[in-house]
Amino acid sequence: MNTAEYLINKLRDFGIFHYFGLPGDFNLNIIYTVQNTPDTEWIGCTNELNAGYAADGYARENGFGALITTYGVGELSAINAIAGSYSENISVIHIVGTPTTEILNSGNIGHHFFQNGNPFCFYEMYKNVTETGAILNRDNAKIEIDRILKIFKKERKPVYIAIPADIATMEIKDKEILLDWYSDEENLSKVVTEISEKLRKSEAPIIVADSLIERFDAKKEFNEFVEKTGIPLCNFLMGKNAVNTKYEKYLGTYFADLENNDVNERLIQSDCPIFAGSIYSDMNTCGMKLDCNINSKIAIYGTYTYINNIKYENVKMSDVFNRLTKAIDYKEYNYKPKLKNEESNNNPPEGDLTIDYFYKRLKEFLNSDDRLYIDTGSYTLGAFNTDFKENVKLNSQIFWNSIGWATPACFGAAVAQKDKNIILVTGEGAHQITALEIGTMLRFGVKPVIIVINNGGYTIERLLSDNMDDKFNDINQMDYPKFARSFKGEIWATSVSTADDFDKALRVTKIMKKLCYIEVIIDKADVPEITKSFLNGIKSKKQTKQKHKKIFDNFKLKEIKDLKFGTTTHKSLHEIENGD
Amino acid sequence: MNTAEYLINKLRDFGIFHYFGLPGDFNLNIIYTVQNTPDTEWIGCTNELNAGYAADGYARENGFGALITTYGVGELSAINAIAGSYSENISVIHIVGTPTTEILNSGNIGHHFFQNGNPFCFYEMYKNVTETGAILNRDNAKIEIDRILKIFKKERKPVYIAIPADIATMEIKDKEILLDWYSDEENLSKVVTEISEKLRKSEAPIIVADSLIERFDAKKEFNEFVEKTGIPLCNFLMGKNAVNTKYEKYLGTYFADLENNDVNERLIQSDCPIFAGSIYSDMNTCGMKLDCNINSKIAIYGTYTYINNIKYENVKMSDVFNRLTKAIDYKEYNYKPKLKNEESNNNPPEGDLTIDYFYKRLKEFLNSDDRLYIDTGSYTLGAFNTDFKENVKLNSQIFWNSIGWATPACFGAAVAQKDKNIILVTGEGAHQITALEIGTMLRFGVKPVIIVINNGGYTIERLLSDNMDDKFNDINQMDYPKFARSFKGEIWATSVSTADDFDKALRVTKIMKKLCYIEVIIDKADVPEITKSFLNGIKSKKQTKQKHKKIFDNFKLKEIKDLKFGTTTHKSLHEIENGD
Repeated sequence: MNTAEYLINKLRDFGIFHYFGLPGDFNLNIIYTVQNTPDTEWIGCTNELNAGYAADGYARENGFGALITTYGVGELSAINAIAGSYSENISVIHIVGTPTTEILNSGNIGHHFFQNGNPFCFYEMYKNVTETGAILNRDNAKIEIDRILKIFKKERKPVYIAIPADIATMEIKDKEILLDWYSDEENLSKVVTEISEKLRKSEAPIIVADSLIERFDAKKEFNEFVEKTGIPLCNFLMGKNAVNTKYEKYLGTYFADLENNDVNERLIQSDCPIFAGSIYSDMNTCGMKLDCNINSKIAIYGTYTYINNIKYENVKMSDVFNRLTKAIDYKEYNYKPKLKNEESNNNPPEGDLTIDYFYKRLKEFLNSDDRLYIDTGSYTLGAFNTDFKENVKLNSQIFWNSIGWATPACFGAAVAQKDKNIILVTGEGAHQITALEIGTMLRFGVKPVIIVINNGGYTIERLLSDNMDDKFNDINQMDYPKFARSFKGEIWATSVSTADDFDKALRVTKIMKKLCYIEVIIDKADVPEITKSFLNGIKSKKQTKQKHKKIFDNFKLKEIKDLKFGTTTHKSLHEIENGD
Repeated sequence: MNTAEYLINKLRDFGIFHYFGLPGDFNLNIIYTVQNTPDTEWIGCTNELNAGYAADGYARENGFGALITTYGVGELSAINAIAGSYSENISVIHIVGTPTTEILNSGNIGHHFFQNGNPFCFYEMYKNVTETGAILNRDNAKIEIDRILKIFKKERKPVYIAIPADIATMEIKDKEILLDWYSDEENLSKVVTEISEKLRKSEAPIIVADSLIERFDAKKEFNEFVEKTGIPLCNFLMGKNAVNTKYEKYLGTYFADLENNDVNERLIQSDCPIFAGSIYSDMNTCGMKLDCNINSKIAIYGTYTYINNIKYENVKMSDVFNRLTKAIDYKEYNYKPKLKNEESNNNPPEGDLTIDYFYKRLKEFLNSDDRLYIDTGSYTLGAFNTDFKENVKLNSQIFWNSIGWATPACFGAAVAQKDKNIILVTGEGAHQITALEIGTMLRFGVKPVIIVINNGGYTIERLLSDNMDDKFNDINQMDYPKFARSFKGEIWATSVSTADDFDKALRVTKIMKKLCYIEVIIDKADVPEITKSFLNGIKSKKQTKQKHKKIFDNFKLKEIKDLKFGTTTHKSLHEIENGD
């Protein structure tokens, strides 16, 4: 068994059966191994950034994902994707094929090198965006693979392995390795005792769920704990998938003072807030307005817990919840149920499609267990403020916020979850960054529903700019359906600008047995109310300092059809629906 | 005058009037300044990698170029482009808008941050791929800009400036800065004396020209020196644009032992080789087969010179040639003129287009002062082995070799050289990495001729692989003309697979007043002879070690039309040509 085989084989235990990436002259040996390993598939992408994002989407669905690139040029093109996975705790292993040990150490200048540079510098760069890594050599290959995989399993962050071409084919001895880790019993006991004690004294506890619950596989234990104890529950944006929204004490998503203010008030006034799996970033908390350091309260992370600013190392999140479930009894806390405003009128309004109607309709469209991938943009917060059906999973890069992520990420998700409905919502600016991955989706036969919101430019930047019409926020105009149809494969593509046509298009996707691609034309000033509130908060901060202009003037609906230039009619929507 | 204005204003002295990039919430103040500066234009690209490549292409034509991105997500997406510029000595300044000083120093976790990371880590990463850089602050802003611009001018490599949003608008005092630098007179004299001495003793000197001659603006001085002295001249691949091919002692391009072996022999036997502006890398020298360390001979670089392994710092390349021209007299050296095989038959052969005919026809098509941008691929060496007309400029990433570079680079070149003919030749695999930049070309009205060689996958990797048909070397199939037409703008697109149609298509481009886009279908095993020789060299090395199979079997021409799926006829070529 050689090094590449050993690695690819071990990664089967992580559930990794698909490898995203591109071939290059230094990684061919590794790709051969992927190709020759049973049940393991090579997923060639159009470029490395997209491949990295696809591996991220795959890992979000599958727990772990893998990316293979070539030395220098390949790995650097993917570094932003890995950085995103690093910031959001997505477990992607990045395997890089490098020149042979001999070349790396020769002092000679090969291609993908620098004139006077250090041939090992790419690893140096990757140290900033991965949890651990190594450049393998004759002596360390097996030791380093084992070490890195253990950390990969424990920390749930990207790791990096560079394999010189000669090392990939070097024979090494296979041996079982123990990948699991266990909580430090003493620290775990202390944590459980401390938290139990605090909860027993508390009159108004509240649990804030966040994304690390999912990342560290503690969702089951977390929800058992919540239900056993009866403590009111809310979530930060990224924690939406971690909670059981049917839980009777579920308060909804925390939007600071922008929306759902009951949650905000309750959290502010709580005598015992518990932050479960938090990523306490600006966007995830709608502005970091909580007047506390969350680690000074109770903050349970994947591998450690903070209580009163004291860090307890090596306690596994799932163990903490497991023990707490046993240690704590149910208690009836004061709870005001959230009002739901069920709207009954299902007829689409006449005229142009609005973002409000878009989300209203999307809410009906998505069913339990569907996956919604949403890119960063003016429309994102609207998705998080929509009461989708139970167990609709929302995925968005709320923390790293790199536009373009969602298109390839939804591809990776679709590879991981072939039987689920995957729906992508992306702005057209974000989409253009990575849109060529549509071709890869078609080649590998996945069938997400892709919705491209065309609002005529970088709307979020327009809203942050002094002038809504600044030319630098314009982007290239495209005939999106025609673009989508330019790839080989089965695709249904259309463009809609009215509520009625949007309705029809969504219905058509239900009967299509192929990838569906819908361009949705929306006025450039039409953004969800919650986005307006959020941006007005940012702007008003700026205004006090810099006296900027008001931003939410009544922008007139410019003739948005001006944007169109091709002949992407959707005349046939009705016919298709009726099977004509 | 604020910091952003000061910087943008100073960059006018570098001839930078176009800024490539994307807006983000942290760089808006910088982009406003670009927008508000007279004669200065913002060129918004589809993504940061493409923007970086476009800035590289612009700098190749213009001497200097600029890229503006946002913090973290934007700058990391561009890092491979900047690394390419760094490796090939292309002068691109990368300006990054970052969060305010307050946020960076707050310890709070904003978007585009890491959970426990260092908010300054992106600069740390950029240190590996730039000559110098800084994160500006209240105290250092002006000092650092001045320092960095001086190095930018001297070293002709990428530099990095991160400007926090508050610093961009901070008032600073404008003052003239001295950007020029001057040779160390003592070292310069020594260099000229030493070289003159060696040349006087030499019976068979030879000059090897390379790319740094162009990068360091020494082309005029270099060619005066060459012509004055009568020394035979050749060039490494990347040096092709530096030489005057009409010079009577011009020997041609050095391909080691692959081609043009007279040059190789002469260089090996020379008693005084002079390496002018060399990047001594594997691809640039067709395998680094010279049995010498070039610095042990005479090697003249942009800011220093090596003679007999002794480094003379701070001598400007143009000064060295200037002085040598004065110091050395003409001498008649033994010279065997290169045989030119002029082919007279201009009729296209019947049947499918071959790569040989492709280059034969391209040679006729390109006129003096045209720019050819060629991506990395199986066809690249063929271009360098074609005797184009005098002063046809070839641009390729021969050293960094990052596929996908050429499409946006030709866009940047076209922005810099609006009146020149820019021709792009790219493989379809490389093209798909960055192809969305076609939309930006159309938006900004540039009109290159784009030739996409569709040979059904990553041909160069196929040739390096064990099996020509390995599935991982397949790529997404597209209807390229349809794709090109999906962008708004004036474009003429077609697909050709016969020699005759290729001829016609090239003729049509001459009468079209718009961007022309030609897909050229070529058999997947059809590569230039010189590429075969080069790859066979690599493979035979491998074979001796690993017993791989022969690669240049007679691959049958697979029904290449299988690749096509749309209806991209080119029926109208004849009609168009005839004005119908």
